[in-house]
Amino acid sequence: MSDKEPSIKPWGGRFSEPTDQFVERFTASVSFDQRLYHHDINGSLAHAAMLEKVGVLTAAELADIQRGLEEIRAEILAGTFEWSVSLEDVHMNIEARLTDKIGITGKKLHTGRSRNDQVATDIRLYVRDELALICKELSRLQLGLINLAKREAKTIMPGFTHLQTAQPVTFGHHMLAWNEMLERDFSRFQDCGTRLNQCPLGAAALAGTTYPIDRHYSAELLGFERPTENSLDSVSDRDFAIEFAAAASVLMTHLSRFSEELVLWTSAQFKFIELPDRFCTGSSIMPQKKNPDVPELIRGKVGRVNGHLVSLLTLMKSQPLAYNKDNQEDKEPIFDIIDTVKDCLKAYADMVPAITVNEDVTREAAMRGFSTATDLADYLVRKGLPFRDAHEVVGKSVAYGVAENKDLSEMTLEELRTFSSDIEADVFDVLTLEGSVNARDHIGGTAPKQVLAAAERAENRLNKRS
Amino acid sequence: MSDKEPSIKPWGGRFSEPTDQFVERFTASVSFDQRLYHHDINGSLAHAAMLEKVGVLTAAELADIQRGLEEIRAEILAGTFEWSVSLEDVHMNIEARLTDKIGITGKKLHTGRSRNDQVATDIRLYVRDELALICKELSRLQLGLINLAKREAKTIMPGFTHLQTAQPVTFGHHMLAWNEMLERDFSRFQDCGTRLNQCPLGAAALAGTTYPIDRHYSAELLGFERPTENSLDSVSDRDFAIEFAAAASVLMTHLSRFSEELVLWTSAQFKFIELPDRFCTGSSIMPQKKNPDVPELIRGKVGRVNGHLVSLLTLMKSQPLAYNKDNQEDKEPIFDIIDTVKDCLKAYADMVPAITVNEDVTREAAMRGFSTATDLADYLVRKGLPFRDAHEVVGKSVAYGVAENKDLSEMTLEELRTFSSDIEADVFDVLTLEGSVNARDHIGGTAPKQVLAAAERAENRLNKRS
Amino acid sequence: MSDKEPSIKPWGGRFSEPTDQFVERFTASVSFDQRLYHHDINGSLAHAAMLEKVGVLTAAELADIQRGLEEIRAEILAGTFEWSVSLEDVHMNIEARLTDKIGITGKKLHTGRSRNDQVATDIRLYVRDELALICKELSRLQLGLINLAKREAKTIMPGFTHLQTAQPVTFGHHMLAWNEMLERDFSRFQDCGTRLNQCPLGAAALAGTTYPIDRHYSAELLGFERPTENSLDSVSDRDFAIEFAAAASVLMTHLSRFSEELVLWTSAQFKFIELPDRFCTGSSIMPQKKNPDVPELIRGKVGRVNGHLVSLLTLMKSQPLAYNKDNQEDKEPIFDIIDTVKDCLKAYADMVPAITVNEDVTREAAMRGFSTATDLADYLVRKGLPFRDAHEVVGKSVAYGVAENKDLSEMTLEELRTFSSDIEADVFDVLTLEGSVNARDHIGGTAPKQVLAAAERAENRLNKRS
Amino acid sequence: MSDKEPSIKPWGGRFSEPTDQFVERFTASVSFDQRLYHHDINGSLAHAAMLEKVGVLTAAELADIQRGLEEIRAEILAGTFEWSVSLEDVHMNIEARLTDKIGITGKKLHTGRSRNDQVATDIRLYVRDELALICKELSRLQLGLINLAKREAKTIMPGFTHLQTAQPVTFGHHMLAWNEMLERDFSRFQDCGTRLNQCPLGAAALAGTTYPIDRHYSAELLGFERPTENSLDSVSDRDFAIEFAAAASVLMTHLSRFSEELVLWTSAQFKFIELPDRFCTGSSIMPQKKNPDVPELIRGKVGRVNGHLVSLLTLMKSQPLAYNKDNQEDKEPIFDIIDTVKDCLKAYADMVPAITVNEDVTREAAMRGFSTATDLADYLVRKGLPFRDAHEVVGKSVAYGVAENKDLSEMTLEELRTFSSDIEADVFDVLTLEGSVNARDHIGGTAPKQVLAAAERAENRLNKRS
Repeated sequence: MSDKEPSIKPWGGRFSEPTDQFVERFTASVSFDQRLYHHDINGSLAHAAMLEKVGVLTAAELADIQRGLEEIRAEILAGTFEWSVSLEDVHMNIEARLTDKIGITGKKLHTGRSRNDQVATDIRLYVRDELALICKELSRLQLGLINLAKREAKTIMPGFTHLQTAQPVTFGHHMLAWNEMLERDFSRFQDCGTRLNQCPLGAAALAGTTYPIDRHYSAELLGFERPTENSLDSVSDRDFAIEFAAAASVLMTHLSRFSEELVLWTSAQFKFIELPDRFCTGSSIMPQKKNPDVPELIRGKVGRVNGHLVSLLTLMKSQPLAYNKDNQEDKEPIFDIIDTVKDCLKAYADMVPAITVNEDVTREAAMRGFSTATDLADYLVRKGLPFRDAHEVVGKSVAYGVAENKDLSEMTLEELRTFSSDIEADVFDVLTLEGSVNARDHIGGTAPKQVLAAAERAENRLNKRS
Repeated sequence: MSDKEPSIKPWGGRFSEPTDQFVERFTASVSFDQRLYHHDINGSLAHAAMLEKVGVLTAAELADIQRGLEEIRAEILAGTFEWSVSLEDVHMNIEARLTDKIGITGKKLHTGRSRNDQVATDIRLYVRDELALICKELSRLQLGLINLAKREAKTIMPGFTHLQTAQPVTFGHHMLAWNEMLERDFSRFQDCGTRLNQCPLGAAALAGTTYPIDRHYSAELLGFERPTENSLDSVSDRDFAIEFAAAASVLMTHLSRFSEELVLWTSAQFKFIELPDRFCTGSSIMPQKKNPDVPELIRGKVGRVNGHLVSLLTLMKSQPLAYNKDNQEDKEPIFDIIDTVKDCLKAYADMVPAITVNEDVTREAAMRGFSTATDLADYLVRKGLPFRDAHEVVGKSVAYGVAENKDLSEMTLEELRTFSSDIEADVFDVLTLEGSVNARDHIGGTAPKQVLAAAERAENRLNKRS
Repeated sequence: MSDKEPSIKPWGGRFSEPTDQFVERFTASVSFDQRLYHHDINGSLAHAAMLEKVGVLTAAELADIQRGLEEIRAEILAGTFEWSVSLEDVHMNIEARLTDKIGITGKKLHTGRSRNDQVATDIRLYVRDELALICKELSRLQLGLINLAKREAKTIMPGFTHLQTAQPVTFGHHMLAWNEMLERDFSRFQDCGTRLNQCPLGAAALAGTTYPIDRHYSAELLGFERPTENSLDSVSDRDFAIEFAAAASVLMTHLSRFSEELVLWTSAQFKFIELPDRFCTGSSIMPQKKNPDVPELIRGKVGRVNGHLVSLLTLMKSQPLAYNKDNQEDKEPIFDIIDTVKDCLKAYADMVPAITVNEDVTREAAMRGFSTATDLADYLVRKGLPFRDAHEVVGKSVAYGVAENKDLSEMTLEELRTFSSDIEADVFDVLTLEGSVNARDHIGGTAPKQVLAAAERAENRLNKRS
Repeated sequence: MSDKEPSIKPWGGRFSEPTDQFVERFTASVSFDQRLYHHDINGSLAHAAMLEKVGVLTAAELADIQRGLEEIRAEILAGTFEWSVSLEDVHMNIEARLTDKIGITGKKLHTGRSRNDQVATDIRLYVRDELALICKELSRLQLGLINLAKREAKTIMPGFTHLQTAQPVTFGHHMLAWNEMLERDFSRFQDCGTRLNQCPLGAAALAGTTYPIDRHYSAELLGFERPTENSLDSVSDRDFAIEFAAAASVLMTHLSRFSEELVLWTSAQFKFIELPDRFCTGSSIMPQKKNPDVPELIRGKVGRVNGHLVSLLTLMKSQPLAYNKDNQEDKEPIFDIIDTVKDCLKAYADMVPAITVNEDVTREAAMRGFSTATDLADYLVRKGLPFRDAHEVVGKSVAYGVAENKDLSEMTLEELRTFSSDIEADVFDVLTLEGSVNARDHIGGTAPKQVLAAAERAENRLNKRS
């Protein structure tokens, strides 16, 4: 039973794999690139249509190819397609099946292209579609934040710097800070999508082809803005993968920050909010314990995406042109980033609308720590006191408050006037939490009026997307 | 003399530093952020002008501040400014000096702002200016590549996949592949610049300010597109730093790829090109030895920039809002990336126009390895042979060539016709290196005609920049 | 057919997953942690035996548990075990099945432990076993290198610095350089194994347990050196994962360097070696083309492992104690590193013995570039010439050689003596390639005698391992 | 004043630097590698002594070299040494100065070595010495933690999982968790030091030297365990740098976790501890505000060190043997890691002994959340209840407590017995916080007795170091 002499049966067996089979499995990509089948078929359909247009294929040949490929697509969707490792990759698997189906015409499909430009096209098509889905989910999360911001536009909580209470802000203002981060993420994904939207098809192995191809036509059929400019670059470029990974890392960094705050806010020490039960786990003997599993897990997943970014950068470092087998390693990171980002966004988009704020707790926390001291100083400056003197007055008032265990707003006018006779009854307008937040009344400020206006601007930007 | 008992004098002394001084030095940033002085002064000038516009400062006070700040700028440029670690950072050093110079009005400058929004503004201004310089140098390098591409549009070299000879390409075509990479880099830097071009000034510590500031006015004075939307986000956001680092990592990855190729091409085994002497080092006893130091060093420097990207991502991971001291760590990576990128671009922009190609060597290398075999197959397909039969013919021809040590183009027509009677005299048009490259005559292809057209398009894009 | 309106069927469906099921899947780990079943069962067996020893379980209960767990192991091996996502992880799946089998006693197994210490134990047991397999495969690769070094101890090739020909070395010497890197890798993996070999079992959720457990006993049963020292640390520590990832990254960096050299050496320009066919792929129309796929792919895979290292470091950054859900993210990187490292080592261990050297080509390449110029200078210094004068003589000789297209060893004695009368007939002993390598006759030097002695020392170290 | 037309004076000037000077500066390393002077001189002294032993230098020549080098060391220490960029690096600067001082004998020092093995030796000597200093400071920090653990061995605080209150632990126990992390760090640094302690001197440029050198002798003089085994590996290996960086990253990850907890614990929400003022900054108008700057900054610095690790791994990826100029990029990351780690350790070692615990607050926090519910369940199991029934009893008790707002320990015996008649008066021994922690009385458990014993073991390990 001891593990001292490890039994090698269950995990060590692979080492006795015959070398040839091992190399076949080791170098094959079909186990993961079969995910590209839909875009591989679309790419082939466009290539075939172009070949027919320029006279390399006949109309009848094209029709056969179209029929064959759609049948294959149906087989894959139905789960009846048999993937073969010895056919290496998604491209060869589909091409071999096509030839099974339609005979020698299937082989003609590969005229004027190579797997190098084919895979470069497939992966761009795939990432482009996934970007659209990611952006959709991102928009849904943003809408949730904006609505939450409106709902809690007046709800007061402490604003922190250095995790120390600094000044009161509104919960809605805080949500819009999160929304701004996502707004930039959206914009980065859009830029990434625009930059990748060029069609490498026709670059062939590395130098172009001798067939009279029409690259503009196939690019157009696939919805690309235009064909790529250089064949060597087309088959060796993986910039879009790195750029996508970088944009995803920033997004995940944002989600890790949101998650950190949710974890803090649901702790016994903060108790600012409640998360819906289904995003947490409990404990059988401590029924009130509610672990914020989903935010924690998402906080952890930023590591995963940052790691993939480093993978891709390391992969491309000092690779000579044009195509090298190393590049096969680009796919798994991209796929895992896409799955991770989509899951995390879905989790957040589902979770955010269901957040409830413990308004009493956040208000009480904002009261602590003389959070309106800055407001008193500003008040005195407006009354004409030099900034320095104002500071001194505030310092003394706070010292008194600490000694007497009274917040500034809890002092009487008489008490306050012992520190400066410039203080008058209107001081309480600025010393209250409401007074403090209302006073920050400019674009970007935390005044509820500004928060609502900002939420409306944000919503308008969102509506312009679709 | 032995190192067994390390003398601790020269490097260990710091540990006896008194704690208070140590903490002061440890937490101060002035040793590196003084680099921001120019933009800090510009930011202050805009802020002061805005304060005067809204009535917080008088015209006379503004004039004093303007005079004082310009004097300080002159002192710093002249090297006579005394930086003090105990004043922590560039902002406090300049403000303290301003108060020395113009008295209490100097203190008023800080009305309605905080170091949190001040530094966020400074660093954006700084990166924006450096981006402009980087883009200028990038354009200079691109111009060099385009000119080299034109000069060598017809020069034949082997195109590689897997570092194995694949098909002939032209040297100019290869240079334009490099240019395409840089074209995307330029575009990424532009997008980064657009996205960062919002003004955080007015966000104050975290929540905005109670003074009647005009954020649109100060944003406009500083050339920003508009003020930022949310004060909490404004003081905590470092997206632009990460995005800039990511764009720089991709650029450096490209330069590492160029460098790898230059190192290969200057080796005794390749001898494809000569680099100008001043980018290499020699050896006193092996006069013909010329180490490609500059490309090697640049290849190494990609690690540095990737590392900074990881630093920044790690830094921001799971930071709660709003400002935390951690963020002070954003500056050194940004500064070092800027220095590195500018140096590497300058080195490349200086070096590229001086590259000379050993045309005989590249041509001879392209001849090796039956690099026109694909062309023969395409020829046969055009003659009406089914693709499969064409392949078989080529396979047999090459086997014969290997046995006889003859390239395809060196065989007689008779020899070739023994493999297929479809081969006719016009076959030599496609079997020669020139025939091969000329035949890839479509957008993105390696035909010299296409290379020249692509170079012209590239130059036009370049000209539109300024 | 156009991709303009992406069909969302095949990949977008997940977003319509009901939220509860989604969260269940999103937070469950059983899809990947089922790989730990073998070690989870072993850990449970040790825990149960300990509980029986201290009287918490009866002998009969222990027997039931033992029987039940072994049956479950058999079911899993046989593929008949039904994994359930709603049971979250490997631990709950096995425990639930155990209770199915043996009733309420199954529930007692969890007495005095928690999933937090359980998973920490499982993963250490798993990594420990995999380290043993990795080290075994590493040793096999080293043996291959040592044998190759012996076989090619006298085979001369150019030694490179800056990828420029520097001095002649032997192929065997180069292989032993590779072996030294792997020797350090082995040693790092051993250190990692030693450091992780402490048993967290008994730390329970985070604070230890109130049951009278005997942690030394369960540690001993599982082959651990001792129990861990602190319960909070035990459930939160993932150092061993990071240390393992770091050691793996260095190993993969070494393999990437070997791969780079194999890719260079199999290029048409170098042609130093031949790789066995089964590690390469060919091309149907260029039969002599042989792409070094396996080295290329391994070169790419260093990115993957570096990425996982960054993932794990990011994951653990600034996590408060003790256990957080984030930590679930530690497993997939570890598993993928293990798979990758084992595959890459197997590929190399299979490939290395089959490398053949094109001795004529490497010799010819070593002749080029006056690679023995250093030897001539050393010869003159030994004849009494001041170093500086010796350098001058060599410089002139080389310049003459360049002009006359003659290597130093191809010049006559008369020719050589025109540069210095100190040169005598014995000079040719040092100017030949053999003379040059033989003269580097000290530990670590490239003299064949030294290479053979070093190979023997290396083999002795290897033999001491088992 | 606007920044719209950036003045290029202050930062753009470098681009007008003449190319030759630019390349000289760009490729020179003396600006950063001068830090190695002490070890460069020590390395040279050992090399010279070896050359004299084997008869290459005379005793008089050796004496001259020794005198000259010690004079240079004194000049550098005194700050009178003039470093020259055109002499490229620390080695050439010192050698040139030596020749100035002692004439032609200075040139003889370089006999039988090259800058490649010289710098490899210097950097190992340097890192070895710095490792000793780092380990010393690490020990000092550990001593502080152990003492704090003893002082607070009985102080009760909440133990957290998922940042939710889980079970009571002692503050001392928590400090020892931190200490365990550092114990592993120490051990990793030791292993790193052992592995690097081999002498590359004598590897010369890449292949060894033709002079009759005695590598064992110079290795011994420098305190190395033995000479390295292979010359090619000796000049190209940078494993020790990567291994050191990885060990430093793990250490910094630990410090980031400590820092996160200190930041949490000093927040208004937690208030668990007080940090000494000098590690914090205040605010002029909010006197009670105390920002934990030092922990925050250290938390941020983990990014820096992780980044350097990635730099070094990227640097070495796929470099062919032997020495390449890329490797010059190894130094700055190493130097910055050393400075960072030493500063952060010093800050922590100074700060930890001055931490004070707000015992009332931590105790009160531990009371919240039914943290002894697990203890009640364990109590019932010991009384003979099946585990499942015990859980049910506890569940009901807690539900009652939530409704009545009473912790378990605040209920009367009668109240408790309504849930199970097995509960007797001795239940209060386990329901109190003291009862709970005392009951976890096994190695690694949180019982104060165990904490004190663990502290003693930890101290003993510490004492064995010196």
